[in-house]
Parts: sequence; structure tokens; C-alpha cells
Amino acid sequence: MKKVFLVIGAGAGIGGTVAKKFAKEGYHAALCRRSDAEGLNKIASEITDAGGSASAHLLNAVDEGAIENLVTEIEAEIGPIEVVLYNLGSQIGGRSLEDTSLKVFELGWRMATFGLFRVAKVLFPLMEERGGGTMLVTSATASVRGNAGQHSHAASMGGRRMLCQTLNAEYSKKGIHVAHILIDGAVDAPDTLGKMLGAERFQQLREARGLDNDGLLLPEKMAETYFHVSQQHRSAWTHELDLRAFSDLPWWNHEA
Amino acid sequence: MKKVFLVIGAGAGIGGTVAKKFAKEGYHAALCRRSDAEGLNKIASEITDAGGSASAHLLNAVDEGAIENLVTEIEAEIGPIEVVLYNLGSQIGGRSLEDTSLKVFELGWRMATFGLFRVAKVLFPLMEERGGGTMLVTSATASVRGNAGQHSHAASMGGRRMLCQTLNAEYSKKGIHVAHILIDGAVDAPDTLGKMLGAERFQQLREARGLDNDGLLLPEKMAETYFHVSQQHRSAWTHELDLRAFSDLPWWNHEA
Amino acid sequence: MKKVFLVIGAGAGIGGTVAKKFAKEGYHAALCRRSDAEGLNKIASEITDAGGSASAHLLNAVDEGAIENLVTEIEAEIGPIEVVLYNLGSQIGGRSLEDTSLKVFELGWRMATFGLFRVAKVLFPLMEERGGGTMLVTSATASVRGNAGQHSHAASMGGRRMLCQTLNAEYSKKGIHVAHILIDGAVDAPDTLGKMLGAERFQQLREARGLDNDGLLLPEKMAETYFHVSQQHRSAWTHELDLRAFSDLPWWNHEA
Amino acid sequence: MKKVFLVIGAGAGIGGTVAKKFAKEGYHAALCRRSDAEGLNKIASEITDAGGSASAHLLNAVDEGAIENLVTEIEAEIGPIEVVLYNLGSQIGGRSLEDTSLKVFELGWRMATFGLFRVAKVLFPLMEERGGGTMLVTSATASVRGNAGQHSHAASMGGRRMLCQTLNAEYSKKGIHVAHILIDGAVDAPDTLGKMLGAERFQQLREARGLDNDGLLLPEKMAETYFHVSQQHRSAWTHELDLRAFSDLPWWNHEA
Repeated sequence: MKKVFLVIGAGAGIGGTVAKKFAKEGYHAALCRRSDAEGLNKIASEITDAGGSASAHLLNAVDEGAIENLVTEIEAEIGPIEVVLYNLGSQIGGRSLEDTSLKVFELGWRMATFGLFRVAKVLFPLMEERGGGTMLVTSATASVRGNAGQHSHAASMGGRRMLCQTLNAEYSKKGIHVAHILIDGAVDAPDTLGKMLGAERFQQLREARGLDNDGLLLPEKMAETYFHVSQQHRSAWTHELDLRAFSDLPWWNHEA
Repeated sequence: MKKVFLVIGAGAGIGGTVAKKFAKEGYHAALCRRSDAEGLNKIASEITDAGGSASAHLLNAVDEGAIENLVTEIEAEIGPIEVVLYNLGSQIGGRSLEDTSLKVFELGWRMATFGLFRVAKVLFPLMEERGGGTMLVTSATASVRGNAGQHSHAASMGGRRMLCQTLNAEYSKKGIHVAHILIDGAVDAPDTLGKMLGAERFQQLREARGLDNDGLLLPEKMAETYFHVSQQHRSAWTHELDLRAFSDLPWWNHEA
Repeated sequence: MKKVFLVIGAGAGIGGTVAKKFAKEGYHAALCRRSDAEGLNKIASEITDAGGSASAHLLNAVDEGAIENLVTEIEAEIGPIEVVLYNLGSQIGGRSLEDTSLKVFELGWRMATFGLFRVAKVLFPLMEERGGGTMLVTSATASVRGNAGQHSHAASMGGRRMLCQTLNAEYSKKGIHVAHILIDGAVDAPDTLGKMLGAERFQQLREARGLDNDGLLLPEKMAETYFHVSQQHRSAWTHELDLRAFSDLPWWNHEA
Repeated sequence: MKKVFLVIGAGAGIGGTVAKKFAKEGYHAALCRRSDAEGLNKIASEITDAGGSASAHLLNAVDEGAIENLVTEIEAEIGPIEVVLYNLGSQIGGRSLEDTSLKVFELGWRMATFGLFRVAKVLFPLMEERGGGTMLVTSATASVRGNAGQHSHAASMGGRRMLCQTLNAEYSKKGIHVAHILIDGAVDAPDTLGKMLGAERFQQLREARGLDNDGLLLPEKMAETYFHVSQQHRSAWTHELDLRAFSDLPWWNHEA
């Protein structure tokens, strides 16, 4: 059976692109997302067309039992999950306290914090039995500082970061490596940023950041670091790192 | 109508003691906790016996509508809530990933993160109309770093801290002051630490930390700082501060 | 002999104003600054005219032996220094790498980091013998994040914050309390901000931030918190806190 | 002319080992350290014996003009410095406030903070002219938290981290990438840890951490990440990351 790279949240941005990198490096890429079977199958096809191995799985991560069943099924039918990428976010754009319903606030937590906990609950015992494994977690600036309009996003991502630290504190000595990857800037991702902004504003942003097409975070380049971190020898593991474009200021600096 | 100090989580430790301080300074103290009506009434009586004003309210903060109804009722029947202390935690002692059920993990979030959000949702529009108000939030070391056995606690308190920052980012300019008070050490609190450890071990800890009875955080002394922060002039507000006993090492230092 | 409050960096902003607060509360205020004897004497006179006790000392803190001699002299001739406020900064406005000479970079360190270390070296053994003491340290946003043009400022204030933590780690258990007070915003201080901006721009800023005259950090209001922290009972000490005006965004939030 | 990798602080641990990695990848490795010409030449020989290109340079980084002359000389005689690794630390073991002389405190700053500033002063204008470059900075836990006995170390490394942030804020948009690499654990390095502990205790530690010889940070494995970061595409740069062995707890966790 093939070693498996599982990505939860496989759009045309980070998730799908990192999956292609792992597939190229010999992993079976198990791709999951909530909807858009067509888009999902397209990524899977691109991987298999390039000689890689991939499977597509629709998954509503907030459904009871859904994550648990998926992990169990993949482990049984495809192979051991060596690396999992948790790539679901809870960014819904700026929304004031008044405009953030209890339901939306809870949904953010179910996506960004609880889902990650559920993956660890079902997968870490299996990884521990095998002597190790890796969990890559795409995270956001909102995990380290709250901001206006980010109630749901910041509360859920802040919880996510602390959860990554508890998981490392308990599991790194058992060979399981959790890496919290803080994406601190706009990503060139049509399925998330593109949808949030709309096609026209997204294209405007891409052009404004232009600079030889690298003023946004490029998923293919990010994928190199995701892969590197997953392959670090256990004597030198990174728990937390940030990624941003050279032309962006980090979150701790104000705009001039 | 009297200006009201509302405390959610009024045990014999921080919550009740801070309430006594506010009552002494002229606030009506509205005391809430989930159970132990007798204990709650005892604190209220101690306040009124000392010439202060107090009311006791049983409240299960995770019940739908409970927080919202309580705030509405107090505002209608007692007076405007000028200061609210959110004093509910999610500490359940060390519990491994395996021993932390989905239900427990969710309950921690409902207590430590969601409840705070619900208070802000119902109370901040009222405070904004009045031109200001204060929210004091008792927080924990787990809000800034995860640790083994702290899955539920760290994820929910990390979310809480980020939520405090989003609230300040949106509401401080409207005159609402949110203060995140990081309690970094053991508190001399029979209702929480005492129950968690059991009477005997709690007494042993108190004696071990002895040092003229101040090796644990003393609630009466903490109350001085809670009150001070609530009275800061709006030209000089503290958003985040820590409190620990002189004999304790801060969370960022290992024992020698 | 009187208990002494020593302030190193006593201008008409934070330093002098905090000194007035301590004098009002019964301390002798020993005021030091590098130059402007007239301005210094004016603050001392205002204190004595109000019935307080004060002395004025010119001090070039970067001179070899100057800090050490001053502390020794005050302890011998005036009384035991119970509280010291280290209020020297290293802010010189935005200055690019190219425009920051080696000499300027070093001077920033001598003012902001080394001077604080020297105070601790000479004063902490005396405080330890007496069983305790307090060191208040005015610090800046630059102590927690670097920014363009802040090479000297950030490097020296970052060093200062880490030094405060080492001092607490070693001395808090001996009864010496070090508090790092992060001033995160513009202070209504004619001697520092006023000089940096020039009289006209300073007045423009004051008016722009207007808002009933509290859009800048007001030293008299800050002094309340400085004093409170110095009086905290040793069972509940604050090591780090921030101060900013309600109308300012904290450093971790970008301007909208 | 060859592209140059310059390492300041080239012992048999991180410095020399990272140099070997860069040499293998086609860079000329310019190796500098203060003393032990023999040890330095040995590393250079190992590189050239393996078919790489290397040069050895004795450098006392605290001497006036020494760093500046070295950079100028290498640029003139060997080639453009594309990547510089600043690998000098200021760890001198635990030393109480009393035992930390003013001279030692200042020396720590000259090594850990000022030296880095001087490298940037002389090298960044050259890199800027060429359109880019990379500065890797080996840093320590002491850069993010002070601890007893670490006065000189923490103050100087805290300054270093803030300096890295100012450099990025000013230069990343010009194509210069500064990466702050926080080494959070003991490194298997005979020239630094080995000397600090003495041969016998160092060997005991290595054996105690044993675990297939990877309970300490292994320089050859760390070098993989140093190299990866230096090669990140400018659309996805890491400014800060940590490295520790799987068997170590991170600095923010206490021992159980």
C-alpha cells in the first residue's frame, strides 16, 4: 500500500498545489473538499495525468463522524496517512460584532479548531502505532492577533494555534510532528481569495501586486516549504514558521 | 438606578472577591454562577452585611439564551452594567488527547470562548449607547501557550485572547475597554483549585507555598488590580497584563 | 530617612509627572536628567511648593560611573531607594540603516539597555538586603517588534525587555519587582515627542487627537497605573502590561 | 567569480556544517572564526577535498573595522556574497547578575547584536545594488524570553531579534531576505556546547539524549533547513522559524 498524503481543504490554491507536490514526490494524494466535485476531480486528474496517484473525496468536515469515517476509510483502502495537511480556514471577510451571528461564530470554530482536533483524535493513535507521522496546519495571521471584523476568524485560529502546541507537547516525543504554518499575506488562490473578492477585484489585486507575478504568495512556491517541513529529520523539527511575499509587510508592522 | 458590576463565575476565589471590592466601591454586585445557591447567597450576604448592594443569580452559561436573558434582566431591573467580569474558565486538569472527548472539548469552548462572545454580543451595544463600559476577562497561561493535557483548555483560552483583541480593535474607540488579565499561577481559591485538588492536597499546597501566606495568588490582592484597571482613564488603558506571585516563575521560564 | 522614589529621565512628560504622583504619596522624589537644569529645578519646585519632597540631579547616564555614583549618593544622603523608574528611551525618530551610524546604534544601547543593567547591578544588592524593592521600566512598542527606521530603537528596547525578564527570573523571589510598562502610542510629552516633532507639529497632533484632550496618552493618567503597579502586593505582581489611548489601535493591528 | 556563502562563526557545529552544505550546492564557502586556525583550516580542507570551494579567515568580530574589512575583501577577491550566515552567539552559561560584569554584558552585545548590525551596514547596500541577497541568523531561545543567569545572553539576543525585524521591514521589499532561526535546544556541537560543558559532561549528555543519536539537534539535519530557507522564492519567505529535537519540549512548556 502507498504512503498517503491527505489534504483536508483541497482547492485550486494551497491545498491542491501542495497535493501536487507530494504526489510528484511519490505520495498518494487523497484530496478532500466540501463541494465542487468537478474542481476536485480536475486536480486529481492533473495529478494522475502527470503520472501521480490521487483520489477525490467530498467531505463536509463539520458533519458528525465525517472526518472520522474518511480517515478510517483511507487508512483501510488506500494506505497509511503519513502526512496530513489541515487546510480549512474560517476567513469570511471583515464582519462586525453585530453582523457576526452566534451561528457564524460557531461555524468558524467547527471548521478551524474542532475539525483539527477531530483529525488528531482519530489519526494520531494510528500514527503513534506506526512510530510517527506529520501534520501540517495552514494558519493565518489571525492566529496571533485579533483585529476588527475578525471575531470568528481570530477566535478560531487562535484556538487552533494553541491546539497545535498542545498536540506537539504531547506527541512530538512519540514521533508525530505538528507544524503551524502562519500564512501572513494574500495568497494567489482563485478558490478562496478569488471568491471572497470576486473575479474582477481579485484580478486587480493580482495586477497591483504584480512585480513579476510574485507580489502575492504563490502556492507552488509555498508548496516547497510545506514539503520541506514534512521531511525534516526528527532531530531538527520546526513547530512554527511564517510565510509572506517579499513585498508585503509582516503583521507586526503598520503600513507606512 | 445603581451602576452595576456583573460577574459571571462568582465563586469564593477571584469572582466573589472582586465583587466584594466593587461593592465596597459603590457598585451593585450582580453575582452569577452555575450551581451552589448556598455559596452564592453567602457571598451576597457578606456584601450586604458590610453595607453593600448585591444580588445572586444562578446561571448556566452554556444554556441557549441564558446569558442574554440575564443581561437583559439585570439592565432592566437593577441598572446599567458598567463593568462586567467574565470569570468562567475551562480548566479541567491535565487530560490527554485520548481522554479528551469531543464533548469535553466543545464544552471548554462553550465556557471559555463562546460565552464571552455572547456577553459582548448582548452587552456591547448597550454600553456603546451609553458611551462606554468595561469588560474584565480573567484568563490563563493556556491563552498564550499550549501544553500537554491542555487540549480543551488551551484551544478555548487561546480563542478567548484573540477574541478580546478583536473586541478592543472594534470597540475601544467607542469607549469600551476590554482587559485580558492573564493569571499565571495558582490562586488561593477553594471553589476551583481547591475542588480540583481536593481539600487535603489544596491545604498541602497552601502550606508548601506558605511564605507568610502569599505564595499563592491571593484574590483580595488581585482584586485591587482588577479594580484599578476598570478605573483607568481612557487616555491610558491596559489591554493585557499578567499577575503572578513573587515566588512563582512566569510561564516562559523553566524551573531551574 | 525618607523612602525614595528615583526617576532616571525626568522630563515634563512621564518622568516628572510620575515623580509628582510618588511625591504626593509620601516619597522623596529624586529627579535626574541629562541637561536642562532649569526644567529639572522647575519640577522639583512644583513638588516642594505642593508640600512634597524632591531633589534635582543632573546625570549623564552614559558616563562611566555616573549611575553608580548617583545611586550610592542618594542612598547615603537621602534615603533608601524603594522604587526606581527607568525612563530613558532611545527613540530618535525614523532613521534608515544607511543613516544610522555605528555610534548612534551604540548610544541607543547605552541609554536603553546598558543603563538599566547598571542600575540593577548597583541597586538590586541594596534592595535585596532590605528584603525588597521595585523597578518600573518605561518601554516602547519597539521592544516587541522591529520596524523600518527603528534599528537602534528596536534593538535596544528588545534587549531591555529580555533584560527585565532575566531580572525578574532572578530577583522576584527575593522580593524585587520589575515591571515592564509598554507604552504603545504617542504621549502628551513636550520634552520628548514635542522636541522630536517641533512645537508646531506637536500642537497639530494634540489637536488632531483632541477628543476632549485624551487622544494622546496623558502622563497624569499614566502615573496612576505606574503607582498602582509599584504598590501591588507581592502575591499578585504584574511583570508586563501595556498602555495606550482608547482612540489608538494597538501595535498588532494595522491601520484600517 | 563564484557566488559566495559567508559564515561568521564557523565552528565544528552549525557554522561549519552549514558551510559544507552550501559548498556542496555550488557556493564558495568563506569561513570565519576568531581563533583556532587549525580547526578552521580543517573544515576548509574537508570542503575542498570533497570537491568544493572554501577559504578560511580569522576574524575577531568585535575589533573595529574587522567585519567591514572582511566583507569588502571577500567581495573584491572572491565574489559577491549571496548568502551570509551570522552564527556568533553570546551564550556564556548561567551567570548571576552579581557575576555578570559590565564588560561581559557589553561583550555579549558586541557579539550578538552590534556585529550583526555591522554586517548589515556594510553588506546590504551591496546586496541591494545586485537586487537581492539572504542573511541567515542563528538565534536562541534567549531572544524571546529572559531567564535567570542569562542577563548578557538574553539582552543581546532579544536585541538581535528586533534588529532582524527592522532589517526585514526596510529591506525585504528590496529583495533582501533576513531569516531569524531560533534554535530551541541543545546542539550536538563540540566547539560550543562541548567546550561549555567539558568533554565528559558533553559525552554524558549525548548519551543521555541518545535515542538513535538524534536527541540533540544534529547540525547536518539543521543545515537542510538553513539551505532551504535561503532558497525560498521571494513570493514565500519565512522571517522566523524555530528548530528543536522531537524529544525536547519547546521553551514555552515546563517539564511535566
